[in-house]
Amino acid sequence: MEVLRNVAGLRSACDEARRHGARVGLIPTMGALHEGHLALVDRAAAEGASFRVVTIFVNPLQFGEGEDLDRYPRTLEADLIACRERGADAVFVPEPGAMYPPGFQSHVEVTSLTETLEGHFRPGHFRGVTTVVAKLFLLAGPCVAIFGRKDYQQLLTIQRMVEDLGFPVEVIGHPVVREADGLALSSRNRYLGPDERRRALGIARGLAAADEAWRAGERDADTLRRVARAPVAEAFDRIDYVEVVHPESLAPGEGLLERATVLVAAHLGATRLIDNLELGVDPPPVRAPAAGARAAPRP
Amino acid sequence: MEVLRNVAGLRSACDEARRHGARVGLIPTMGALHEGHLALVDRAAAEGASFRVVTIFVNPLQFGEGEDLDRYPRTLEADLIACRERGADAVFVPEPGAMYPPGFQSHVEVTSLTETLEGHFRPGHFRGVTTVVAKLFLLAGPCVAIFGRKDYQQLLTIQRMVEDLGFPVEVIGHPVVREADGLALSSRNRYLGPDERRRALGIARGLAAADEAWRAGERDADTLRRVARAPVAEAFDRIDYVEVVHPESLAPGEGLLERATVLVAAHLGATRLIDNLELGVDPPPVRAPAAGARAAPRP
Repeated sequence: MEVLRNVAGLRSACDEARRHGARVGLIPTMGALHEGHLALVDRAAAEGASFRVVTIFVNPLQFGEGEDLDRYPRTLEADLIACRERGADAVFVPEPGAMYPPGFQSHVEVTSLTETLEGHFRPGHFRGVTTVVAKLFLLAGPCVAIFGRKDYQQLLTIQRMVEDLGFPVEVIGHPVVREADGLALSSRNRYLGPDERRRALGIARGLAAADEAWRAGERDADTLRRVARAPVAEAFDRIDYVEVVHPESLAPGEGLLERATVLVAAHLGATRLIDNLELGVDPPPVRAPAAGARAAPRP
Repeated sequence: MEVLRNVAGLRSACDEARRHGARVGLIPTMGALHEGHLALVDRAAAEGASFRVVTIFVNPLQFGEGEDLDRYPRTLEADLIACRERGADAVFVPEPGAMYPPGFQSHVEVTSLTETLEGHFRPGHFRGVTTVVAKLFLLAGPCVAIFGRKDYQQLLTIQRMVEDLGFPVEVIGHPVVREADGLALSSRNRYLGPDERRRALGIARGLAAADEAWRAGERDADTLRRVARAPVAEAFDRIDYVEVVHPESLAPGEGLLERATVLVAAHLGATRLIDNLELGVDPPPVRAPAAGARAAPRP
Protein backbone atom coordinates (compact mmCIF):
# COMPACT_ATOMS: atom_id res chain seq x y z
CA MET A 1 0.00 0.00 0.00
CA GLU A 2 1.37 3.36 -1.06
CA VAL A 3 1.25 6.32 1.31
CA LEU A 4 1.04 9.52 -0.72
CA ARG A 5 1.89 12.81 0.95
CA ASN A 6 1.38 15.43 -1.74
CA VAL A 7 -0.89 16.19 -4.66
CA ALA A 8 1.66 15.31 -7.31
CA GLY A 9 2.08 11.91 -5.69
CA LEU A 10 -1.67 11.28 -5.69
CA ARG A 11 -1.99 12.31 -9.33
CA SER A 12 0.94 10.23 -10.55
CA ALA A 13 -0.09 7.14 -8.56
CA CYS A 14 -3.56 7.26 -10.10
CA ASP A 15 -2.22 8.02 -13.59
CA GLU A 16 0.12 5.08 -13.25
CA ALA A 17 -2.66 2.77 -12.08
CA ARG A 18 -4.82 3.80 -15.05
CA ARG A 19 -1.95 3.25 -17.43
CA HIS A 20 -1.95 -0.34 -16.24
CA GLY A 21 -5.64 -0.62 -16.90
CA ALA A 22 -6.89 -0.14 -13.33
CA ARG A 23 -10.21 1.44 -12.41
CA VAL A 24 -9.55 4.05 -9.73
CA GLY A 25 -11.93 4.15 -6.76
CA LEU A 26 -11.78 7.03 -4.29
CA ILE A 27 -12.84 6.94 -0.63
CA PRO A 28 -12.55 10.47 0.82
CA THR A 29 -12.42 10.58 4.63
CA MET A 30 -11.21 12.77 7.47
CA GLY A 31 -9.47 9.81 9.12
CA ALA A 32 -10.23 8.49 12.62
CA LEU A 33 -11.45 5.54 10.61
CA HIS A 34 -14.10 3.15 11.88
CA GLU A 35 -16.05 0.31 10.30
CA GLY A 36 -18.32 2.87 8.59
CA HIS A 37 -15.32 4.07 6.59
CA LEU A 38 -13.76 0.68 6.03
CA ALA A 39 -17.01 -0.64 4.60
CA LEU A 40 -16.54 2.00 1.88
CA VAL A 41 -13.27 0.35 0.84
CA ASP A 42 -15.10 -2.95 0.42
CA ARG A 43 -17.85 -1.18 -1.48
CA ALA A 44 -15.33 0.39 -3.85
CA ALA A 45 -14.08 -3.10 -4.67
CA ALA A 46 -17.65 -4.32 -5.17
CA GLU A 47 -18.15 -1.44 -7.62
CA GLY A 48 -15.23 -2.65 -9.69
CA ALA A 49 -12.48 -0.34 -8.44
CA SER A 50 -9.21 -2.19 -8.79
CA PHE A 51 -7.06 0.67 -7.40
CA ARG A 52 -8.65 1.90 -4.20
CA VAL A 53 -7.42 5.17 -2.74
CA VAL A 54 -8.46 6.29 0.73
CA THR A 55 -7.88 9.99 1.36
CA ILE A 56 -7.39 11.16 4.94
CA PHE A 57 -7.62 14.90 5.30
CA VAL A 58 -9.18 16.92 8.11
CA ASN A 59 -10.31 19.65 5.76
CA PRO A 60 -10.10 23.04 7.50
CA LEU A 61 -12.37 24.62 4.84
CA GLN A 62 -15.38 22.68 6.04
CA PHE A 63 -15.09 23.63 9.72
CA GLY A 64 -16.62 26.87 10.97
CA GLU A 65 -15.49 29.11 13.81
CA GLY A 66 -16.00 27.43 17.16
CA GLU A 67 -16.34 23.99 15.60
CA ASP A 68 -14.13 21.03 16.47
CA LEU A 69 -11.35 21.35 13.87
CA ASP A 70 -8.61 21.45 16.51
CA ARG A 71 -9.87 18.58 18.60
CA TYR A 72 -11.09 16.46 15.68
CA PRO A 73 -9.60 13.00 16.34
CA ARG A 74 -6.39 12.16 14.47
CA THR A 75 -5.39 8.48 14.56
CA LEU A 76 -3.15 8.24 11.53
CA GLU A 77 -1.09 5.20 12.54
CA ALA A 78 -4.17 3.11 13.28
CA ASP A 79 -5.84 4.43 10.12
CA LEU A 80 -2.96 3.29 7.93
CA ILE A 81 -2.96 -0.16 9.50
CA ALA A 82 -6.72 -0.46 9.00
CA CYS A 83 -6.49 0.65 5.36
CA ARG A 84 -3.73 -1.85 4.66
CA GLU A 85 -5.64 -4.67 6.33
CA ARG A 86 -8.74 -3.75 4.36
CA GLY A 87 -6.89 -3.90 1.06
CA ALA A 88 -6.61 -0.24 0.11
CA ASP A 89 -4.02 0.26 -2.61
CA ALA A 90 -3.03 3.78 -1.60
CA VAL A 91 -3.69 6.31 1.14
CA PHE A 92 -3.42 10.03 0.47
CA VAL A 93 -2.45 12.01 3.57
CA PRO A 94 -1.72 15.60 2.59
CA GLU A 95 -0.67 18.45 4.85
CA PRO A 96 -3.22 21.32 4.73
CA GLY A 97 -0.58 23.37 2.89
CA ALA A 98 -0.53 20.76 0.13
CA MET A 99 -4.24 21.18 -0.59
CA TYR A 100 -4.45 24.94 0.02
CA PRO A 101 -1.11 26.58 -0.73
CA PRO A 102 -0.68 30.35 -0.23
CA GLY A 103 -2.85 32.29 -2.67
CA PHE A 104 -5.49 29.57 -2.87
CA GLN A 105 -8.77 31.28 -3.74
CA SER A 106 -10.95 28.90 -5.77
CA HIS A 107 -14.11 27.28 -4.48
CA VAL A 108 -16.88 25.06 -5.72
CA GLU A 109 -20.32 25.75 -4.38
CA VAL A 110 -23.73 24.08 -4.63
CA THR A 111 -26.45 26.53 -3.67
CA SER A 112 -30.08 25.48 -3.05
CA LEU A 113 -29.44 22.03 -1.62
CA THR A 114 -27.00 23.41 0.93
CA GLU A 115 -29.13 26.20 2.32
CA THR A 116 -31.09 24.11 4.81
CA LEU A 117 -30.30 21.65 7.62
CA GLU A 118 -26.50 21.30 7.99
CA GLY A 119 -25.99 24.30 5.72
CA HIS A 120 -28.13 26.44 7.98
CA PHE A 121 -26.31 25.42 11.15
CA ARG A 122 -22.85 25.20 9.59
CA PRO A 123 -22.57 28.12 7.15
CA GLY A 124 -19.73 27.57 4.70
CA HIS A 125 -19.48 23.87 5.59
CA PHE A 126 -20.66 22.50 2.24
CA ARG A 127 -18.59 24.99 0.27
CA GLY A 128 -15.59 23.51 2.06
CA VAL A 129 -16.78 19.99 1.31
CA THR A 130 -17.48 20.53 -2.38
CA THR A 131 -14.20 22.37 -2.85
CA VAL A 132 -12.07 19.64 -1.33
CA VAL A 133 -14.00 16.83 -3.02
CA ALA A 134 -13.76 18.58 -6.40
CA LYS A 135 -10.01 18.90 -5.91
CA LEU A 136 -9.65 15.25 -4.88
CA PHE A 137 -11.66 14.19 -7.94
CA LEU A 138 -9.50 16.33 -10.21
CA LEU A 139 -6.25 15.00 -8.73
CA ALA A 140 -7.20 11.32 -8.60
CA GLY A 141 -9.57 11.10 -11.58
CA PRO A 142 -11.59 8.24 -10.08
CA CYS A 143 -14.19 6.22 -12.00
CA VAL A 144 -16.11 5.76 -8.80
CA ALA A 145 -16.17 7.47 -5.41
CA ILE A 146 -17.83 6.11 -2.28
CA PHE A 147 -19.36 8.23 0.48
CA GLY A 148 -21.27 7.20 3.58
CA ARG A 149 -24.97 7.94 3.68
CA LYS A 150 -24.69 9.13 7.27
CA ASP A 151 -23.65 12.47 5.78
CA TYR A 152 -26.80 12.40 3.73
CA GLN A 153 -27.00 16.05 2.68
CA GLN A 154 -23.30 15.92 1.82
CA LEU A 155 -23.90 12.93 -0.46
CA LEU A 156 -26.75 14.68 -2.29
CA THR A 157 -24.67 17.84 -2.59
CA ILE A 158 -21.71 16.00 -4.09
CA GLN A 159 -23.98 14.09 -6.49
CA ARG A 160 -25.50 17.43 -7.54
CA MET A 161 -22.05 18.95 -8.10
CA VAL A 162 -20.98 15.96 -10.19
CA GLU A 163 -24.15 16.08 -12.28
CA ASP A 164 -24.13 19.87 -12.74
CA LEU A 165 -20.47 20.30 -13.64
CA GLY A 166 -19.99 17.00 -15.45
CA PHE A 167 -17.35 15.33 -13.31
CA PRO A 168 -16.69 11.95 -15.00
CA VAL A 169 -17.19 9.93 -11.82
CA GLU A 170 -19.93 7.78 -10.36
CA VAL A 171 -20.74 8.81 -6.80
CA ILE A 172 -22.13 6.04 -4.62
CA GLY A 173 -23.71 6.41 -1.20
CA HIS A 174 -23.10 3.48 1.13
CA PRO A 175 -25.66 2.73 3.88
CA VAL A 176 -25.10 3.94 7.44
CA VAL A 177 -23.16 1.44 9.52
CA ARG A 178 -24.48 1.17 13.10
CA GLU A 179 -23.50 -0.33 16.44
CA ALA A 180 -25.65 -3.25 17.58
CA ASP A 181 -27.73 -0.84 19.68
CA GLY A 182 -28.43 1.44 16.70
CA LEU A 183 -25.90 4.26 17.21
CA ALA A 184 -24.55 5.34 13.84
CA LEU A 185 -20.77 4.97 13.69
CA SER A 186 -19.03 8.32 13.77
CA SER A 187 -15.51 9.52 14.45
CA ARG A 188 -17.11 11.93 16.91
CA ASN A 189 -18.58 9.10 19.02
CA ARG A 190 -15.22 8.83 20.75
CA TYR A 191 -15.90 12.25 22.31
CA LEU A 192 -18.80 10.76 24.26
CA GLY A 193 -18.54 9.92 27.98
CA PRO A 194 -20.35 6.77 29.20
CA ASP A 195 -23.52 8.66 30.14
CA GLU A 196 -23.51 10.56 26.83
CA ARG A 197 -22.93 7.32 24.94
CA ARG A 198 -26.11 5.95 26.51
CA ARG A 199 -28.11 9.11 25.81
CA ALA A 200 -26.81 9.22 22.21
CA LEU A 201 -29.23 6.39 21.44
CA GLY A 202 -32.03 8.95 21.55
CA ILE A 203 -31.41 9.62 17.85
CA ALA A 204 -31.65 5.98 16.79
CA ARG A 205 -34.81 5.70 18.90
CA GLY A 206 -36.34 8.71 17.24
CA LEU A 207 -35.54 7.39 13.78
CA ALA A 208 -36.83 3.94 14.71
CA ALA A 209 -40.04 5.38 16.10
CA ALA A 210 -40.72 7.37 12.94
CA ASP A 211 -39.86 4.35 10.82
CA GLU A 212 -42.23 2.15 12.80
CA ALA A 213 -44.98 4.73 12.48
CA TRP A 214 -44.35 4.93 8.73
CA ARG A 215 -44.42 1.13 8.34
CA ALA A 216 -47.69 1.16 10.31
CA GLY A 217 -49.15 3.56 7.73
CA GLU A 218 -48.55 7.01 9.20
CA ARG A 219 -47.88 9.51 6.37
CA ASP A 220 -48.50 12.90 7.96
CA ALA A 221 -45.33 15.00 7.97
CA ASP A 222 -45.95 16.80 11.26
CA THR A 223 -46.90 13.63 13.07
CA LEU A 224 -43.75 11.89 11.83
CA ARG A 225 -41.68 14.89 12.89
CA ARG A 226 -43.20 14.77 16.38
CA VAL A 227 -42.67 11.03 16.70
CA ALA A 228 -39.03 11.30 15.60
CA ARG A 229 -38.32 14.29 17.78
CA ALA A 230 -39.57 13.12 21.18
CA PRO A 231 -36.82 10.58 21.99
CA VAL A 232 -34.13 13.01 20.77
CA ALA A 233 -35.53 15.86 22.85
CA GLU A 234 -35.63 13.61 25.88
CA ALA A 235 -32.00 12.47 25.64
CA PHE A 236 -30.06 15.34 24.08
CA ASP A 237 -28.97 18.71 25.48
CA ARG A 238 -29.86 20.64 22.36
CA ILE A 239 -31.48 19.88 19.01
CA ASP A 240 -30.37 21.65 15.82
CA TYR A 241 -33.07 19.95 13.78
CA VAL A 242 -35.25 16.88 13.54
CA GLU A 243 -36.67 17.28 10.06
CA VAL A 244 -38.78 15.21 7.70
CA VAL A 245 -37.88 15.96 4.09
CA HIS A 246 -38.15 14.66 0.56
CA PRO A 247 -35.27 12.17 0.09
CA GLU A 248 -33.96 13.87 -3.05
CA SER A 249 -34.89 17.55 -2.97
CA LEU A 250 -34.62 17.85 0.85
CA ALA A 251 -37.77 20.00 0.67
CA PRO A 252 -39.52 19.98 4.07
CA GLY A 253 -42.38 17.48 4.08
CA GLU A 254 -45.88 18.96 4.28
CA GLY A 255 -49.16 17.10 4.65
CA LEU A 256 -49.27 13.48 3.49
CA LEU A 257 -45.99 12.16 2.13
CA GLU A 258 -45.13 9.56 -0.49
CA ARG A 259 -41.47 9.32 0.48
CA ALA A 260 -39.67 10.74 3.49
CA THR A 261 -36.23 10.92 5.01
CA VAL A 262 -35.81 11.96 8.65
CA LEU A 263 -32.65 13.96 9.32
CA VAL A 264 -31.39 14.72 12.81
CA ALA A 265 -28.63 16.89 14.28
CA ALA A 266 -28.34 17.29 18.03
CA HIS A 267 -25.84 18.08 20.77
CA LEU A 268 -24.67 16.15 23.80
CA GLY A 269 -22.42 18.50 25.72
CA ALA A 270 -19.73 19.66 23.28
CA THR A 271 -20.44 16.84 20.83
CA ARG A 272 -22.74 17.23 17.85
CA LEU A 273 -24.14 14.10 16.24
CA ILE A 274 -26.08 13.64 12.99
CA ASP A 275 -28.01 10.72 11.58
CA ASN A 276 -30.79 9.98 9.11
CA LEU A 277 -33.16 7.33 7.83
CA GLU A 278 -35.34 6.99 4.75
CA LEU A 279 -38.60 5.81 6.25
CA GLY A 280 -39.75 2.38 5.14
CA VAL A 281 -36.69 2.00 2.91
CA ASP A 282 -33.55 1.95 5.04
CA PRO A 283 -33.18 -0.92 7.48
CA PRO A 284 -34.51 0.07 10.92
CA PRO A 285 -31.69 1.40 13.14
CA VAL A 286 -32.65 -0.86 16.03
CA ARG A 287 -34.77 -3.95 16.23
CA ALA A 288 -38.37 -2.88 16.08
CA PRO A 289 -39.62 -4.32 19.43
CA ALA A 290 -36.88 -2.63 21.46
CA ALA A 291 -37.30 0.64 19.62
CA GLY A 292 -41.05 0.50 19.91
CA ALA A 293 -40.92 -0.26 23.59
CA ARG A 294 -38.73 2.77 24.23
CA ALA A 295 -40.03 5.25 21.71
CA ALA A 296 -43.74 4.87 22.33
CA PRO A 297 -44.61 3.27 25.65
CA ARG A 298 -47.40 0.77 25.24
CA PRO A 299 -50.58 0.82 27.27
CA MET B 1 -15.30 18.06 -38.61
CA GLU B 2 -17.85 16.86 -36.07
CA VAL B 3 -20.57 19.22 -34.85
CA LEU B 4 -21.56 18.22 -31.32
CA ARG B 5 -24.84 19.47 -29.90
CA ASN B 6 -24.98 18.05 -26.38
CA VAL B 7 -22.70 17.30 -23.47
CA ALA B 8 -22.78 13.54 -23.97
CA GLY B 9 -21.63 14.07 -27.56
CA LEU B 10 -18.74 16.27 -26.47
CA ARG B 11 -17.64 13.78 -23.84
CA SER B 12 -17.83 10.75 -26.10
CA ALA B 13 -16.07 12.47 -29.01
CA CYS B 14 -13.16 13.42 -26.74
CA ASP B 15 -13.08 10.00 -25.06
CA GLU B 16 -13.00 8.40 -28.49
CA ALA B 17 -10.20 10.69 -29.68
CA ARG B 18 -8.14 9.87 -26.57
CA ARG B 19 -8.77 6.17 -27.09
CA HIS B 20 -7.04 6.58 -30.45
CA GLY B 21 -4.09 8.29 -28.79
CA ALA B 22 -5.06 11.88 -29.60
CA ARG B 23 -4.17 14.85 -27.40
CA VAL B 24 -7.34 16.91 -26.91
CA GLY B 25 -7.02 20.69 -27.24
CA LEU B 26 -9.92 22.93 -26.22
CA ILE B 27 -10.67 26.41 -27.57
CA PRO B 28 -13.63 27.87 -25.62
CA THR B 29 -15.38 30.76 -27.39
CA MET B 30 -18.72 32.55 -27.54
CA GLY B 31 -18.76 32.35 -31.33
CA ALA B 32 -18.90 35.34 -33.70
CA LEU B 33 -15.44 34.09 -34.55
CA HIS B 34 -12.72 36.35 -35.89
CA GLU B 35 -9.02 35.92 -36.55
CA GLY B 36 -8.34 36.33 -32.83
CA HIS B 37 -10.26 33.13 -32.18
CA LEU B 38 -8.99 31.24 -35.20
CA ALA B 39 -5.40 31.94 -34.21
CA LEU B 40 -6.21 29.92 -31.08
CA VAL B 41 -6.97 26.87 -33.22
CA ASP B 42 -3.53 27.19 -34.82
CA ARG B 43 -1.99 27.64 -31.41
CA ALA B 44 -3.66 24.49 -30.13
CA ALA B 45 -2.02 22.59 -32.97
CA ALA B 46 1.34 24.22 -32.20
CA GLU B 47 0.93 23.03 -28.60
CA GLY B 48 0.58 19.46 -29.78
CA ALA B 49 -3.20 19.08 -29.71
CA SER B 50 -4.14 16.54 -32.35
CA PHE B 51 -7.89 16.71 -31.66
CA ARG B 52 -8.92 20.36 -31.56
CA VAL B 53 -12.35 21.20 -30.21
CA VAL B 54 -13.79 24.70 -30.55
CA THR B 55 -16.71 25.37 -28.20
CA ILE B 56 -19.25 28.00 -29.20
CA PHE B 57 -21.54 28.97 -26.36
CA VAL B 58 -22.89 32.40 -25.46
CA ASN B 59 -22.83 31.65 -21.76
CA PRO B 60 -25.76 33.36 -20.03
CA LEU B 61 -24.11 32.92 -16.60
CA GLN B 62 -21.38 35.42 -17.43
CA PHE B 63 -23.69 38.22 -18.53
CA GLY B 64 -25.18 40.60 -15.98
CA GLU B 65 -28.50 42.45 -16.04
CA GLY B 66 -28.51 45.11 -18.71
CA GLU B 67 -25.52 43.61 -20.51
CA ASP B 68 -25.55 42.50 -24.14
CA LEU B 69 -26.54 38.83 -23.82
CA ASP B 70 -29.54 39.22 -26.12
CA ARG B 71 -27.83 41.21 -28.83
CA TYR B 72 -24.48 39.38 -28.59
CA PRO B 73 -23.64 38.49 -32.22
CA ARG B 74 -24.53 34.94 -33.33
CA THR B 75 -22.95 33.89 -36.65
CA LEU B 76 -23.04 30.11 -36.33
CA GLU B 77 -22.99 29.21 -40.03
CA ALA B 78 -19.96 31.36 -40.72
CA ASP B 79 -18.32 30.11 -37.51
CA LEU B 80 -18.65 26.49 -38.56
CA ILE B 81 -17.17 27.22 -41.99
CA ALA B 82 -14.27 29.10 -40.41
CA CYS B 83 -13.58 26.28 -37.93
CA ARG B 84 -13.64 23.69 -40.69
CA GLU B 85 -11.29 25.76 -42.87
CA ARG B 86 -8.95 26.25 -39.95
CA GLY B 87 -8.74 22.54 -39.29
CA ALA B 88 -10.77 22.15 -36.10
CA ASP B 89 -11.70 18.52 -35.51
CA ALA B 90 -14.93 19.21 -33.67
CA VAL B 91 -17.17 22.10 -32.71
CA PHE B 92 -19.35 21.95 -29.62
CA VAL B 93 -22.52 24.05 -29.95
CA PRO B 94 -24.80 23.35 -26.99
CA GLU B 95 -28.18 24.90 -26.28
CA PRO B 96 -28.18 26.76 -22.93
CA GLY B 97 -30.44 24.02 -21.57
CA ALA B 98 -27.74 21.46 -22.32
CA MET B 99 -25.20 23.22 -20.11
CA TYR B 100 -27.60 24.36 -17.39
CA PRO B 101 -30.55 21.97 -17.15
CA PRO B 102 -33.34 22.64 -14.63
CA GLY B 103 -32.07 22.35 -11.07
CA PHE B 104 -28.54 23.42 -11.99
CA GLN B 105 -27.02 25.00 -8.89
CA SER B 106 -23.26 24.43 -8.86
CA HIS B 107 -20.67 27.12 -9.43
CA VAL B 108 -16.93 27.54 -9.40
CA GLU B 109 -15.60 30.78 -8.07
CA VAL B 110 -12.18 32.43 -7.84
CA THR B 111 -12.26 35.20 -5.26
CA SER B 112 -9.43 37.77 -4.87
CA LEU B 113 -8.33 37.97 -8.49
CA THR B 114 -11.88 38.66 -9.63
CA GLU B 115 -12.74 41.46 -7.22
CA THR B 116 -11.19 44.28 -9.20
CA LEU B 117 -11.37 45.62 -12.77
CA GLU B 118 -13.87 43.54 -14.80
CA GLY B 119 -15.11 41.90 -11.62
CA HIS B 120 -15.92 45.28 -10.12
CA PHE B 121 -17.83 46.47 -13.17
CA ARG B 122 -19.38 43.11 -14.04
CA PRO B 123 -20.34 41.46 -10.73
CA GLY B 124 -20.89 37.73 -11.19
CA HIS B 125 -19.16 37.74 -14.58
CA PHE B 126 -16.15 35.66 -13.59
CA ARG B 127 -18.24 33.24 -11.57
CA GLY B 128 -20.09 32.56 -14.82
CA VAL B 129 -16.81 32.20 -16.71
CA THR B 130 -15.14 29.84 -14.26
CA THR B 131 -18.29 27.74 -13.96
CA VAL B 132 -18.68 27.22 -17.70
CA VAL B 133 -14.96 26.68 -18.28
CA ALA B 134 -14.79 24.16 -15.43
CA LYS B 135 -17.70 22.28 -16.97
CA LEU B 136 -16.14 22.35 -20.44
CA PHE B 137 -12.86 21.05 -18.99
CA LEU B 138 -14.69 18.27 -17.16
CA LEU B 139 -16.66 17.24 -20.25
CA ALA B 140 -13.83 17.40 -22.76
CA GLY B 141 -10.86 16.50 -20.55
CA PRO B 142 -8.38 18.48 -22.64
CA CYS B 143 -4.60 18.30 -22.22
CA VAL B 144 -4.35 21.89 -23.29
CA ALA B 145 -6.78 24.80 -23.52
CA ILE B 146 -6.14 28.06 -25.36
CA PHE B 147 -7.55 31.44 -24.38
CA GLY B 148 -6.93 34.87 -25.84
CA ARG B 149 -4.93 37.33 -23.79
CA LYS B 150 -7.36 40.11 -24.68
CA ASP B 151 -9.46 38.80 -21.81
CA TYR B 152 -6.44 39.12 -19.59
CA GLN B 153 -8.10 38.96 -16.18
CA GLN B 154 -10.15 36.00 -17.40
CA LEU B 155 -6.98 34.17 -18.41
CA LEU B 156 -5.37 34.75 -15.01
CA THR B 157 -8.58 33.70 -13.27
CA ILE B 158 -8.81 30.45 -15.22
CA GLN B 159 -5.13 29.71 -14.62
CA ARG B 160 -5.71 30.30 -10.91
CA MET B 161 -8.73 27.97 -10.89
CA VAL B 162 -6.74 25.26 -12.67
CA GLU B 163 -3.83 25.60 -10.28
CA ASP B 164 -5.97 25.77 -7.12
CA LEU B 165 -8.31 22.89 -7.89
CA GLY B 166 -5.86 20.72 -9.79
CA PHE B 167 -7.51 20.52 -13.22
CA PRO B 168 -5.18 18.32 -15.30
CA VAL B 169 -4.93 20.79 -18.16
CA GLU B 170 -2.37 23.30 -19.39
CA VAL B 171 -3.93 26.73 -19.93
CA ILE B 172 -2.22 28.87 -22.53
CA GLY B 173 -2.80 32.54 -23.20
CA HIS B 174 -2.39 33.57 -26.82
CA PRO B 175 -1.36 37.16 -27.67
CA VAL B 176 -3.96 39.75 -28.62
CA VAL B 177 -4.61 39.83 -32.35
CA ARG B 178 -5.04 43.38 -33.71
CA GLU B 179 -6.18 45.14 -36.86
CA ALA B 180 -3.43 46.95 -38.77
CA ASP B 181 -4.37 50.19 -37.04
CA GLY B 182 -4.08 48.64 -33.57
CA LEU B 183 -7.71 47.88 -32.67
CA ALA B 184 -7.87 44.59 -30.79
CA LEU B 185 -10.11 42.10 -32.57
CA SER B 186 -13.37 41.59 -30.72
CA SER B 187 -16.76 40.13 -31.57
CA ARG B 188 -18.17 43.37 -30.20
CA ASN B 189 -16.33 45.50 -32.77
CA ARG B 190 -19.16 44.77 -35.20
CA TYR B 191 -21.45 46.87 -32.99
CA LEU B 192 -19.39 49.95 -33.87
CA GLY B 193 -20.59 52.56 -36.37
CA PRO B 194 -17.97 54.17 -38.65
CA ASP B 195 -17.38 57.10 -36.31
CA GLU B 196 -17.17 54.81 -33.27
CA ARG B 197 -14.80 52.52 -35.15
CA ARG B 198 -12.46 55.49 -35.65
CA ARG B 199 -12.75 56.61 -32.03
CA ALA B 200 -12.21 53.05 -30.79
CA LEU B 201 -8.51 53.52 -31.62
CA GLY B 202 -8.25 55.68 -28.51
CA ILE B 203 -7.54 52.53 -26.50
CA ALA B 204 -4.71 51.33 -28.75
CA ARG B 205 -3.29 54.87 -28.66
CA GLY B 206 -3.41 54.94 -24.87
CA LEU B 207 -1.70 51.56 -24.62
CA ALA B 208 0.90 52.60 -27.21
CA ALA B 209 1.60 55.86 -25.42
CA ALA B 210 2.15 54.10 -22.09
CA ASP B 211 4.31 51.49 -23.80
CA GLU B 212 6.41 54.16 -25.46
CA ALA B 213 6.83 55.98 -22.18
CA TRP B 214 7.85 52.70 -20.51
CA ARG B 215 10.37 51.92 -23.25
CA ALA B 216 11.73 55.44 -22.80
CA GLY B 217 12.32 54.68 -19.11
CA GLU B 218 9.18 55.93 -17.37
CA ARG B 219 8.39 53.69 -14.37
CA ASP B 220 6.06 55.79 -12.22
CA ALA B 221 2.65 54.15 -11.90
CA ASP B 222 0.59 57.36 -11.79
CA THR B 223 2.42 58.88 -14.73
CA LEU B 224 1.89 55.75 -16.80
CA ARG B 225 -1.78 55.72 -15.81
CA ARG B 226 -2.14 59.36 -16.94
CA VAL B 227 -0.34 58.75 -20.21
CA ALA B 228 -2.51 55.69 -20.99
CA ARG B 229 -5.72 57.38 -19.97
CA ALA B 230 -5.57 60.62 -21.96
CA PRO B 231 -6.23 59.19 -25.45
CA VAL B 232 -8.99 56.96 -24.10
CA ALA B 233 -10.66 59.84 -22.29
CA GLU B 234 -10.48 61.93 -25.43
CA ALA B 235 -12.13 59.36 -27.70
CA PHE B 236 -14.53 57.37 -25.53
CA ASP B 237 -17.90 58.27 -24.03
CA ARG B 238 -17.18 56.67 -20.68
CA ILE B 239 -14.24 54.94 -19.02
CA ASP B 240 -14.73 52.05 -16.61
CA TYR B 241 -11.02 51.87 -15.85
CA VAL B 242 -7.58 52.57 -17.24
CA GLU B 243 -5.43 50.79 -14.69
CA VAL B 244 -1.76 49.96 -14.32
CA VAL B 245 -1.32 46.71 -12.41
CA HIS B 246 1.12 43.95 -11.64
CA PRO B 247 0.91 41.47 -14.55
CA GLU B 248 0.30 38.46 -12.30
CA SER B 249 -1.37 39.63 -9.09
CA LEU B 250 -3.33 42.46 -10.75
CA ALA B 251 -2.44 44.57 -7.69
CA PRO B 252 -2.67 48.29 -8.60
CA GLY B 253 0.77 49.67 -9.36
CA GLU B 254 2.14 52.20 -6.86
CA GLY B 255 5.33 54.23 -7.12
CA LEU B 256 8.10 52.88 -9.35
CA LEU B 257 7.28 49.62 -11.09
CA GLU B 258 9.38 46.68 -12.24
CA ARG B 259 6.65 45.15 -14.38
CA ALA B 260 3.32 46.60 -15.44
CA THR B 261 0.26 45.70 -17.45
CA VAL B 262 -2.18 48.40 -18.53
CA LEU B 263 -5.80 47.28 -18.59
CA VAL B 264 -8.57 49.35 -20.18
CA ALA B 265 -12.35 49.09 -20.31
CA ALA B 266 -14.38 51.90 -21.88
CA HIS B 267 -17.67 52.61 -23.59
CA LEU B 268 -18.55 53.97 -27.02
CA GLY B 269 -22.29 54.42 -27.03
CA ALA B 270 -23.80 51.04 -26.10
CA THR B 271 -20.57 49.17 -26.84
CA ARG B 272 -18.03 48.31 -24.17
CA LEU B 273 -14.49 47.46 -25.28
CA ILE B 274 -11.55 46.06 -23.30
CA ASP B 275 -7.89 45.74 -24.10
CA ASN B 276 -4.52 45.41 -22.37
CA LEU B 277 -0.78 45.47 -22.84
CA GLU B 278 2.17 44.37 -20.74
CA LEU B 279 4.46 47.36 -21.03
CA GLY B 280 7.79 46.73 -22.70
CA VAL B 281 6.91 43.07 -23.19
CA ASP B 282 3.94 42.77 -25.55
CA PRO B 283 4.42 44.04 -29.10
CA PRO B 284 3.29 47.67 -29.41
CA PRO B 285 -0.35 47.87 -30.58
CA VAL B 286 0.45 50.36 -33.31
CA ARG B 287 3.68 51.32 -34.98
CA ALA B 288 5.54 53.58 -32.59
CA PRO B 289 5.85 56.74 -34.77
CA ALA B 290 2.13 56.87 -35.55
CA ALA B 291 1.18 56.18 -31.94
CA GLY B 292 3.63 58.75 -30.65
CA ALA B 293 2.37 61.37 -33.06
CA ARG B 294 -1.21 60.87 -31.93
CA ALA B 295 -0.79 60.15 -28.26
CA ALA B 296 1.51 63.03 -27.41
CA PRO B 297 1.40 65.89 -29.89
CA ARG B 298 4.87 67.14 -30.67
CA PRO B 299 5.95 70.76 -30.43
